[in-house]
Amino acid sequence: MNGKKGRIEIDVFAANIRPPECGKSSGSGGRNLAKRVWEFCKDDPGRVTFSFKVGLAVLLVSLLILFRASYEVFGTNIVWAILTVAIMFEYTVGATFNRGFNRALGSLLAGILAIAVGQVAIRTGHIAEPVIIGFTIFIIGALTSFIKQWPSLTPYEHGFRVILFTYCLIIISGYRMGHPIGTALNRLYAIAIGGAVTLVVNVSIFPIWAGEQLHKELVKSFETVADSLQECVGRYLDEDGQENSEFSKKVMDEFPDEPAFKRCRLTLNSSAKLDSLANSAKWEPPHGNFRHFFYPWSEYVKVGAVLRHCAYEVMALHGCLHSEIQAPHNLRSAFEPEIREAGNDAAELVRSLGKDISNMTRSQPASLLKKVHNSTERLQRSIYMHSYLLTSPSEPLNADTKPSLKPQLSSSNSDLSKRLAEYEGMKKFSESEGTTESYHETMKKQQRRLHSWPSCDIGGFEEEAVGVDLPTKLTALESTTALSLATFASLLIEFVARLDHLVEAVDELANLARFA
Amino acid sequence: MNGKKGRIEIDVFAANIRPPECGKSSGSGGRNLAKRVWEFCKDDPGRVTFSFKVGLAVLLVSLLILFRASYEVFGTNIVWAILTVAIMFEYTVGATFNRGFNRALGSLLAGILAIAVGQVAIRTGHIAEPVIIGFTIFIIGALTSFIKQWPSLTPYEHGFRVILFTYCLIIISGYRMGHPIGTALNRLYAIAIGGAVTLVVNVSIFPIWAGEQLHKELVKSFETVADSLQECVGRYLDEDGQENSEFSKKVMDEFPDEPAFKRCRLTLNSSAKLDSLANSAKWEPPHGNFRHFFYPWSEYVKVGAVLRHCAYEVMALHGCLHSEIQAPHNLRSAFEPEIREAGNDAAELVRSLGKDISNMTRSQPASLLKKVHNSTERLQRSIYMHSYLLTSPSEPLNADTKPSLKPQLSSSNSDLSKRLAEYEGMKKFSESEGTTESYHETMKKQQRRLHSWPSCDIGGFEEEAVGVDLPTKLTALESTTALSLATFASLLIEFVARLDHLVEAVDELANLARFA
Repeated sequence: MNGKKGRIEIDVFAANIRPPECGKSSGSGGRNLAKRVWEFCKDDPGRVTFSFKVGLAVLLVSLLILFRASYEVFGTNIVWAILTVAIMFEYTVGATFNRGFNRALGSLLAGILAIAVGQVAIRTGHIAEPVIIGFTIFIIGALTSFIKQWPSLTPYEHGFRVILFTYCLIIISGYRMGHPIGTALNRLYAIAIGGAVTLVVNVSIFPIWAGEQLHKELVKSFETVADSLQECVGRYLDEDGQENSEFSKKVMDEFPDEPAFKRCRLTLNSSAKLDSLANSAKWEPPHGNFRHFFYPWSEYVKVGAVLRHCAYEVMALHGCLHSEIQAPHNLRSAFEPEIREAGNDAAELVRSLGKDISNMTRSQPASLLKKVHNSTERLQRSIYMHSYLLTSPSEPLNADTKPSLKPQLSSSNSDLSKRLAEYEGMKKFSESEGTTESYHETMKKQQRRLHSWPSCDIGGFEEEAVGVDLPTKLTALESTTALSLATFASLLIEFVARLDHLVEAVDELANLARFA
Repeated sequence: MNGKKGRIEIDVFAANIRPPECGKSSGSGGRNLAKRVWEFCKDDPGRVTFSFKVGLAVLLVSLLILFRASYEVFGTNIVWAILTVAIMFEYTVGATFNRGFNRALGSLLAGILAIAVGQVAIRTGHIAEPVIIGFTIFIIGALTSFIKQWPSLTPYEHGFRVILFTYCLIIISGYRMGHPIGTALNRLYAIAIGGAVTLVVNVSIFPIWAGEQLHKELVKSFETVADSLQECVGRYLDEDGQENSEFSKKVMDEFPDEPAFKRCRLTLNSSAKLDSLANSAKWEPPHGNFRHFFYPWSEYVKVGAVLRHCAYEVMALHGCLHSEIQAPHNLRSAFEPEIREAGNDAAELVRSLGKDISNMTRSQPASLLKKVHNSTERLQRSIYMHSYLLTSPSEPLNADTKPSLKPQLSSSNSDLSKRLAEYEGMKKFSESEGTTESYHETMKKQQRRLHSWPSCDIGGFEEEAVGVDLPTKLTALESTTALSLATFASLLIEFVARLDHLVEAVDELANLARFA
């Protein structure tokens, strides 16, 4: 009914790449669709491989039945082999193993239980037998349904379903057809055949390893966080502060012009994906680059969590970027080099960590970390030295009141002071001349926006604020807008502070996974 | 293998309440387990109801088979009725309908296709028949596996699996047993019986509606966000700034002493849950309080998204709280009343919105919104007026340079200025006397922490920063620490700005859902 919302969920879970506007085929229909399908395949050729593998697996199992021999041995129970393939064949090797384990253990337990109960029931005579059978079916149904809700057992949900219907099938066909053990065994054989075919096909033909996927996924997350940090910082510095009147329209929008941010948001929601890949990867034998047993897949999840912790800070930076209260553009440009440098250095560190994981090597991130700390410190220092710009802008500052600070400025800082002087000049100019985009007008606009929530009547609001005249309120707002720059810088600094933990987490992973 | 990580995933997805340390039963084992099971049931009695309903449904279907009559009519195919119950019975009514739809449509399509292909194949003669059958099985296997990966179709994944194995079963039993139409029809009847029993039991006995769950879930999210905002603000104001040396230890920790924050983080990850509940709810007929057709369930998802948007701000506030760079405690206390008031008012508004949704009523949130705006503005104003405290603390401020501001202070603000005077006094005292917890020592400690990442050698770092002596660096840091208060306040103000959108979204929901 609301296809759009539905698609959002799918975005988050099923695919990182969404074919543009899938579902809406119109106009040059067929060709358009074909193109999208082609892109879908090209994007991850594993999808096509997977499809052919499933086809092959069901074909192989069906051949067993099409040839008379096996059909005569196992009887109609051989159809369970097909069902097993259809249910057990998952995208990755690990998930297939996991599913197979659920199915095998569930069938085995249910089979043993059903045979035992069947033997007891048969001895109680013709009247009691169906009663006992019915009662146990009820109990098994209730019990498996209850247990599978237990939080630590939910990953085995499928196993509990298998127990339930296997038990019912065996005990009932035992009752009706009189040979429960035969039924149970035939069913087990059929499942074993289906499972074996599934595993052989899945592992031997272009296997898709969950571990490898997890590895790639994590590396991609690093790149995404780095990209969106840079995008965010870049946009903050480039934006002219006028776009924000659009804010209310795009509050929950997709931010179409910010591709990296969109991917970053997907990263935030990827914890479930990483978890399930790690769970699958644990079932996989050593393979490819991951050659030792008990490879620390769970460390990947931990690193992912720390990275997400950093990404939250990027979200906050992005919030600043689209905040209602904005620092004026010229103030931002005043601090531009410091902010940009810190942002770039931080992104570089994140990218280098991602590359280390990708190549399974250990570079020494210390020098990059040092660089980030240095540039962050420069940012801190320049904010400190010019903090008078961030507050009380209505007070005309006398340049002479800062004599103790100016001499300490290093060469890069003398450049900064020039820029700041320009900013001061610009401000004074716009204040006195009242250009079209004057600072105060922007402020007034922002204040109007802040107070113009549609259904709220403003009259009473103004009255309550009696005793404070409008100019004061305006300057208060103005001061807050300047503080928003400080907020942006603080968040950036906090991001850098969290990078220490990220470096540590990657180091721990490198130790446990024995990166070269 | 790593049970702990597995549990985290489960937390996020399966349950809001996690039985404490389930899985580890030790010592007074049995009794402990029984207690936990009891709490698990008490927590949501629906779990027990659900279990008994599943038991009842399988029992009813089994009775059909235990009684000779139906068994003789449908033959062995009746076992599919049990399979259908086991696979189709979901927790909520909507999910059951959805699953049933997948199963019914999948079986129907596969049945028609299998019969058609079977008829064609039979006419091609004994040698070509198995080849055609094998070929179509391969094609169907590959095609369904491919299509189900298409992002907009992943919710129907189960349907595609059903198509695959139903097709195989019917066409193969048709080939082996020679009556594909009979097989197909019997299977369809069996599935219909299983589906009917499932639906009747699920809907008529204590139905658990996805819509109701979604409603409750959303209301709970509102409370959670309000709680964690207050918790966060409260802790920020109460903390004495010394605890942060623990930061590195608990970066990815569970923050055990912040229950509301933990729940808030769950809320952030709940988008998948809301989506799937809304998807299920769309399948449900009008019920309970939701009495009109096409009830706007997707609006719930939208409100949830806007609320999450607010919750990101709470995450950022929480980041501030545990940030490495902290405003000194006495500075925080100086602004305490304003911050606390803004936080409380914002939380009150969020709670009232949650209550509106819960009761399906419309209160006028305008007055509360006005109150929040007022208190936020007071916070802005007081930060503006005392912004000199937030920056350049090394410059001894001459009280006379602020004559234009002081007279404007209202009565509550004169109280503030007293508090600030105290703060100034304290600072001067600690600076001159050097008490054990002097301000500068804290700073030095913080600086040490910032530069003491284990594997990074500090020597080179100090050298690069040549030309700036340590005291300057310290004061730069000090200034940033004070700015961290501004960051906290800005984030709080941004949270309030986002509340406008939340009020709008709730208003939209109230319109579409026709709240009274």
